[in-house]
Amino acid sequence: MTKKNAFYAQSGGVTSVINASACGVIETCRQHADRIGTVYAGRNGIIGALTEDLIDTSRESDADIAALRKTPSGAFGSCRFKLKSLDENRREYERLIEVFQAHDIGYFFYNGGGDSADTCYKVSQLSETMGFPVQAIHVPKTVDNDLPITDNCPGFGSVAKYIAVSALEASFDVASMAKTSTKVFILEVMGRHAGWIAAAGGLIADYDVPVVLLLPEVDFDHDRFIASVKHKVETHGYCTVVVSEGAHHPDGRFLAEQGTRDAFGHAQLGGAAPVVAGMVKDALGYKFHWAVADYLQRAARHIASATDVEQAYALGRAGVEMALDGKNAIMPTIDRVSSDPYEWRIGSADLADVANVEKAMPLDFISEDGFGITDACRDYLYPLIQGEAYPDYDQRGMPRYVVLKNEPVAKKLGPFEI
Amino acid sequence: MTKKNAFYAQSGGVTSVINASACGVIETCRQHADRIGTVYAGRNGIIGALTEDLIDTSRESDADIAALRKTPSGAFGSCRFKLKSLDENRREYERLIEVFQAHDIGYFFYNGGGDSADTCYKVSQLSETMGFPVQAIHVPKTVDNDLPITDNCPGFGSVAKYIAVSALEASFDVASMAKTSTKVFILEVMGRHAGWIAAAGGLIADYDVPVVLLLPEVDFDHDRFIASVKHKVETHGYCTVVVSEGAHHPDGRFLAEQGTRDAFGHAQLGGAAPVVAGMVKDALGYKFHWAVADYLQRAARHIASATDVEQAYALGRAGVEMALDGKNAIMPTIDRVSSDPYEWRIGSADLADVANVEKAMPLDFISEDGFGITDACRDYLYPLIQGEAYPDYDQRGMPRYVVLKNEPVAKKLGPFEI
Repeated sequence: MTKKNAFYAQSGGVTSVINASACGVIETCRQHADRIGTVYAGRNGIIGALTEDLIDTSRESDADIAALRKTPSGAFGSCRFKLKSLDENRREYERLIEVFQAHDIGYFFYNGGGDSADTCYKVSQLSETMGFPVQAIHVPKTVDNDLPITDNCPGFGSVAKYIAVSALEASFDVASMAKTSTKVFILEVMGRHAGWIAAAGGLIADYDVPVVLLLPEVDFDHDRFIASVKHKVETHGYCTVVVSEGAHHPDGRFLAEQGTRDAFGHAQLGGAAPVVAGMVKDALGYKFHWAVADYLQRAARHIASATDVEQAYALGRAGVEMALDGKNAIMPTIDRVSSDPYEWRIGSADLADVANVEKAMPLDFISEDGFGITDACRDYLYPLIQGEAYPDYDQRGMPRYVVLKNEPVAKKLGPFEI
Repeated sequence: MTKKNAFYAQSGGVTSVINASACGVIETCRQHADRIGTVYAGRNGIIGALTEDLIDTSRESDADIAALRKTPSGAFGSCRFKLKSLDENRREYERLIEVFQAHDIGYFFYNGGGDSADTCYKVSQLSETMGFPVQAIHVPKTVDNDLPITDNCPGFGSVAKYIAVSALEASFDVASMAKTSTKVFILEVMGRHAGWIAAAGGLIADYDVPVVLLLPEVDFDHDRFIASVKHKVETHGYCTVVVSEGAHHPDGRFLAEQGTRDAFGHAQLGGAAPVVAGMVKDALGYKFHWAVADYLQRAARHIASATDVEQAYALGRAGVEMALDGKNAIMPTIDRVSSDPYEWRIGSADLADVANVEKAMPLDFISEDGFGITDACRDYLYPLIQGEAYPDYDQRGMPRYVVLKNEPVAKKLGPFEI
């Protein structure tokens, strides 16, 4: 087998553990230096490949690569750039393969969600027909937890832990003062299409916290919501509301929409919490507070789930091992063996079965009234937030997060307009 | 010396370490059972004393009291109820002393900020004249860090750590994707009158993060702010803005005001972040995201500063020791001996000098352009966020926070209207 270089890119919204997958990919490649040459990374994701803006990861020390395991965000940069279909924009795929060919890249590790799985799959198909076959491996990542086949997606477990812990702490705070002060606390969390993240907030019901979830899976019903909050305040003295950014009215309108759209044409959301707070105030007159966690939740490496970090790393490593095993157009997955005690192993999925398939939250994870989660959901969620994997801190009290050198690779091709 | 009971109450907004002070008070009282009888706590703060709704802390196990050190919020409940001046409402003070007398309470430990220091001081004065002298000790607590004489206030260090770490993590996230996505991230933090908490966000400049602070100490100047953000985006590719809820226009109007007021007549704030985001979008067109940390920041026991936890406990303990030493109308303080290496010791302040004095952030802590902090501020802040003092977690991955039994004490007096 000829030695080939590898290309690694991060795609879409970054997470607190996507760098742990990068660490798994790069460390495993380094352990197989006999078969894998240099690992190049795309600066700012796939755009770096299209513009031939490659990073030479061999210039990074072993210590710095190891530190990626404990550093949130995307160390090489990421982007939401979605390649169009082969019919619409074949030249972009061809360019990718030209860049791979120019740098003798035989392994493509693409670390992302559904869109990147699709790109990854198409690259594997087209490279074959172009006579420069590239083994394309998709390493899953998304806080949205919406990839099919895999039991869960790296990034999600840590957000879930952050939301469950933060909602619990804030609820304790509210409970302390509810007699004379804030009675309703509203926390807005991510989750455009699925309520996975908000569902993690539902775990605090196990601590006797009165919590109401507003999930995208359940059409918002103003009167039923207000009645539920009122009941909880009357019985517990206060109420915590965890609202997904994707919560929407029956006609599909989000509870709050900023009116701007991102590169994928998705509406840019934010501000459901103040909207819900206003409803509570108008209908019930309770004193309220609200928080919007936004990027804090997906960047919160300081409270990452140890399970999540371990799986993110393991999937990066498994991707490389599958490539070395001759696999192509594949995605390593997390297969759950049992929930209690939690056991998991690495499996795999064909990218043909992954691309453009979005896994919804099972409806039997949602309680009958639509405002909470079921035991089935609890059994699913708890293992994913198990364990703490703290970053190291310096003497000043700040986390030691690594910033890589990210040195560029000399270009061999002409420019390319995207 | 006759053995007397003690009364402990939590006042004002709770923090992630006020229970550590409670732990310090109760454990130290238990260690001096020869001189201090039962420690009663006020249910929901001072209101519990006025309504004779006392909690018998002797019913709590040593293990549960020890767990307070690692549990955020106010375990006995807190309130913002401010006693009026002696002239205006002498009957409330007299009631307090009647309740103390009825339950043979000779020690009053009041754990709070400026308002509670004032109440504490008046109780000590009036109890003397009423012939039932009570030793009134104020144990400092406030995330606002605005009590005089003490170098810092318990609760602040942990919020500062939370904000510095969270802002750093979110900034790494934004940096990852700024090339094609969000360029400006806005984080709203607490701090109605002083920029202490926002200043902690300024620490991330030490990690080469381009950060702009909007402090209450500096009148908001729209054009200068926009120019600063623009410059940072042009030179660094992105910009993080940390805006204090107390940031205001030159005429005093807050950047955002919800229009409601709390029991102290303070405007209830929230929503400066979306206002600032709108300004950035309108003036510069950059893609933005914003977060409002709200209660998450002051409840975040999971990322508490070890220094803060230790000091909160030490001040509780010192309060009891001072009482046993015969002191009255006093507040134990943190005296800084040196910043590097950080050394501190317990000092004390007369409540006459504490009540109704608000410590402002020194102006030499603010950088010349008004958007950052100086080295003097860094030297002050870093020691306060030193060390991590994690809570324990259960096997499911959630923190073990204690909920006390909070059993009531039989009433001896008639009802009281407040």
